[in-house]
Parts: sequence; structure tokens; C-alpha cells
Amino acid sequence: MALKYAVIGTGAIGGYYGGKLAHSGQDVHFLFHSDYEYVSENGLIINSVSGDFSLPQINAYKDTKDMPVCDVVLVCLKTTSNHILKELLPPLLHKNTVVLMIQNGLGVESDLQKDFPNLNIAGGLAFICSTKKGPGLIYHLDYGKLTIGSYSCSNQSILEQICTDFNNAEIPCDIQDLKAARWKKLVWNIPFNGTTVVLNTTTDKLLENEYTKKLVLEMMEEVIEAANTSDLINNPIPLKYALDIVKSTEKMTPYSPSMKVDFDSQRELEINYLYTQPIEYAAKYGFKMTCASVIEKQLHFIQSLYFKK
Amino acid sequence: MALKYAVIGTGAIGGYYGGKLAHSGQDVHFLFHSDYEYVSENGLIINSVSGDFSLPQINAYKDTKDMPVCDVVLVCLKTTSNHILKELLPPLLHKNTVVLMIQNGLGVESDLQKDFPNLNIAGGLAFICSTKKGPGLIYHLDYGKLTIGSYSCSNQSILEQICTDFNNAEIPCDIQDLKAARWKKLVWNIPFNGTTVVLNTTTDKLLENEYTKKLVLEMMEEVIEAANTSDLINNPIPLKYALDIVKSTEKMTPYSPSMKVDFDSQRELEINYLYTQPIEYAAKYGFKMTCASVIEKQLHFIQSLYFKK
Repeated sequence: MALKYAVIGTGAIGGYYGGKLAHSGQDVHFLFHSDYEYVSENGLIINSVSGDFSLPQINAYKDTKDMPVCDVVLVCLKTTSNHILKELLPPLLHKNTVVLMIQNGLGVESDLQKDFPNLNIAGGLAFICSTKKGPGLIYHLDYGKLTIGSYSCSNQSILEQICTDFNNAEIPCDIQDLKAARWKKLVWNIPFNGTTVVLNTTTDKLLENEYTKKLVLEMMEEVIEAANTSDLINNPIPLKYALDIVKSTEKMTPYSPSMKVDFDSQRELEINYLYTQPIEYAAKYGFKMTCASVIEKQLHFIQSLYFKK
Repeated sequence: MALKYAVIGTGAIGGYYGGKLAHSGQDVHFLFHSDYEYVSENGLIINSVSGDFSLPQINAYKDTKDMPVCDVVLVCLKTTSNHILKELLPPLLHKNTVVLMIQNGLGVESDLQKDFPNLNIAGGLAFICSTKKGPGLIYHLDYGKLTIGSYSCSNQSILEQICTDFNNAEIPCDIQDLKAARWKKLVWNIPFNGTTVVLNTTTDKLLENEYTKKLVLEMMEEVIEAANTSDLINNPIPLKYALDIVKSTEKMTPYSPSMKVDFDSQRELEINYLYTQPIEYAAKYGFKMTCASVIEKQLHFIQSLYFKK
């Protein structure tokens, strides 16, 4: 039986993944905010390195109350908007709905579970360069793989079906242990996201300088130790993983991480789930993420210069 | 018997302290670099909060080879120029000359001693806001106290005479344990110097933001622990000292630390003696200055954008 999908946050991530699902024939319902009027009339355009396509008519909504209940809700908001999920989600949920949090950081699922104790929650990690260029216009620049994993899903088979749906939509997707996958992504995100903002630079420049390359490596090792001390004590990430992903980043085209893109657009930064929560989580296990804490506080200072809640 | 003084580096610090000594009647010989021609003709002007004065005729030199041997050499260079001391000092030295390093950071005396194993070396710490506004023109904006201490002086009495000479020149001066004095100044310098550069701000702004205030305090505590683990194991600085100097900094007028002034003038930063050497020194005692190391590497990156050796 086909799954009915909702996409909350139809931007660079949600527009691409939801757009690919819809393009492959899945039943997808998109929530829009400011772009609603434009997209209702003009649809969605995806300019992608793996082939452009457009969806002239999509199921667009500006309020979840008008949307059908769905089997899968893809949450593709910036985590800085997660406080609105408490209000947005209920109209979309039936007893077995899976909410898939395609977001960065640590703690997004546990925070949502506090508000919805019986909800089936999964997490997703997007390895993608994409950007929203305008209303209904998504540029997919590189990569695109999705890793998903259960946080509190009562049955695994729906995750497998989601995975199959993505693969059929030409989105490489796999299922992994969510905790391990989240920590592994943090190994990249914690050094690069914050440091490119603090030093107003890109990944390649950080790795060309011997000092910041060392800083990146040390920060990566700190995240690995935090992971191995807390969630991954039985299945630790080897320290060598840091060097491996530095090497693969050196081969990437110069890249502004998502937080740098947010900073350049003077948007609120995802400090909480990318820094504060991992730091506090590791601290509960007695591990101090000292480097990450320095960056976290610098980011708060920088954000305070342009962004007031 | 009166002491004969040489001043190496007649800028914001050397111009003020040397100028005050000369104004009080001491025999002072000043080395100049680019300002030599101007000062030979026009002398030195000190605009000071505690009273302006001028020295229309001073003993100005552009080469230490033309200077007399002196009893005391005040080294007031930026530490980034310390490599030239090996060449500059010999013409000024007799058997008992004391070289007083009025500089920030840790390790300036030990590095000099490597080049001059038998030299009598002392250290000085200037608690002063002063700036060179132009050739021969020094503005003294606030404070002025000098703390001196022996590093390898064979007799203490000459330090006492130097101290008396400064006091007679209306420079508050005392003699302290040099290691303790250097570390105590680092407690202020390590958080404020680097962080004002990295975040392009001033001391007051850092303390108004709850996050960077916390960062400053944590960095201060890290320096205190480094000091107490290494040099000050028998006479530790209490952790509470951090809170005390934060409070006194909050009462100061908004202030750009010396490294921020250097950065704003696109000069080389004193990273080595303010960060690298304290970090390496503490590491020898098994203490990791993790916060300071993050800032150190960020500073290298920032400096590399405008300054090439």
C-alpha cells in the first residue's frame, strides 16, 4: 500500500526530497509558509545536477489543518523553528504516523517526544548541497544521500518502505542506527558549521591553513570522544574517522556549511541542536566538549549582533 | 650612583616609561627606527592623563652601535620583534647590565637567556593604556603601573634602584615574583586579547553578552589552573581571582586590548608569547589549555588573511 507523505518546511531540503518523491509518483502534500501563493499557482521547479524537473501542480497548503492525515511526515524545517511543531503536527497524525526529522544535530527527536509521548519518531540525515533560490525554486548542487533510522518507531517495516520509496525516487537512502548516524554527522558539523561562521570562511580555506586544519581535527576528535563516551560505548567511532572525513572534505568543492548559509542570510543559527545539546548530553556522561563550547559561545555572540528573538 | 638607561622600542610603552624617566632627570638613551629623523629634530611629546610634558631634546639613536653601554636596558618592543634582540643588545651591555623585558606573555626571558646565557634578565609588566599617535607623539590614556621581577638577576639591589627610579618619575612600580606576575597578567590577556580579535569587539561588549562573559570566565579559570599546575603550585592563584578581575574590567572604560590594536593596524599578532608558549609550557606539566588553543588557532587563521612573514 502506498504511503501518504507530508512535507513540513518546503525549502532546500524538503523541496528537494519531497519534490523527488512526488516526481516519482508518490502522494505528497507540502506545507508552505510565505511561498504558498506563488507555489499554488506556479508549482515547484527543481534544478538538479542529476537532472532538472518541474512539478507544475502540487498539493500545496498554508495550514496543516487543511492537510490530510498522512502516514509519513517529513520534518524539513530549520531546527530553530521546531517549537511550532507542537501546533503543526496534530492535524497530520493518525495512530501509526511516522514523523521523520530530517534535521541536523542531536536531541530533535527527544524534544519532540516530550510533546508527543506516543508518536512514532524517526530521524533522517541529509547529505546534500541544495539551496532555495526563490519561491518554488530549488537548486540541487551536489550529493543527496539520505540516512534514516528509528528513534521510537513501533515497527521497522514502515521505515523500510520509506527507504524503498526514496530509492525509487532516485534518492540513495539507507537505514542505520540513528544515534551513531547523528554523532557521525556531528563529527563533520561541529567543527565546520561554527568555525566557518566565526572565521567567516569556507571549508577549503579552513583546511588550507595548518592551524585551523589542526583545530578541525581536534574538534572532530572531541566529538568522537563525546560519542564514544555516551551513546556509542559499545560501537565506538575510531579516532581515524576524523582524518578520513578531513581528506574527503579536502576533495569537495569549497563549501559553505548550512550554518554559514544561515549566517550569510542573517537567519537564526542552529546553535541549540548542533552545539548546546550535544555538549550537555556528553556532559551528563562526564565528558567535557571544551572546544565545541568555545565555538558555541562565540556563535551566540555573533548571532546577538544581528538577530534578536 | 645613577643608572644609565637604554630604551629599545620607543613606542607607546617605551616612549612613555622612558620619557617619564628622562623627564625626572635620569640619563636615558632611546633607540628609534622609522621615527629617528623626526625625533632627533623635534624630541618627544607625551600627552598624559596625569599631565602633558615634552622632551625637546633627547638622546636619540637609530643604531645600538652608536649608543653607550648602559646599566639598564628597557626592552619595550612588541614580542614579534624579539628575534632582533640578539643583534641589538650586545653594544649596550656591560658585565652587570640588567635587561628588563617590559612585554606581555610567557617565555620572553627564557628565549632571550638562550641567546645570552650570562645576561642579567628581569621582566616587567605594564598595566597601562597608551598609544603612539605619530612620530615622537605618545598618548597616555589611563593607568600606568609597572610590576617588575627578577628572572636571572644576580643582585636584587639594582632592581630596587630601578623601582625607586620609576617611583621618583611618578610611575607606580613594585617588585613581585615574576612568574606569578606573568601568569596573573595572562589571566586577563588570554581571554580578552584573542577574543576581541576573533569577534572583532571590545572588552565591554564581551562582558555584556552572557555567553562570552561565561567564555571569558572559563578561559580565565583555565589559565589559573595552568598556572597553578605549573609554576605556582606552592602559591596558587585562587579561582575567585577570575571573577574579581572580570568585575574590575566591567568598571573599566570600553577597551581594545593590545592585540586588538595590533589587529586593527594589521600588524603581526603576539600569538607566540601570549598563547603558544603558555600552552606549551602548561602541556609540559600535563595540563591542556584547550580553550586557549582554540583561540590560538583562530588567531593564526585571521592573521594569515592579512599578514605574511
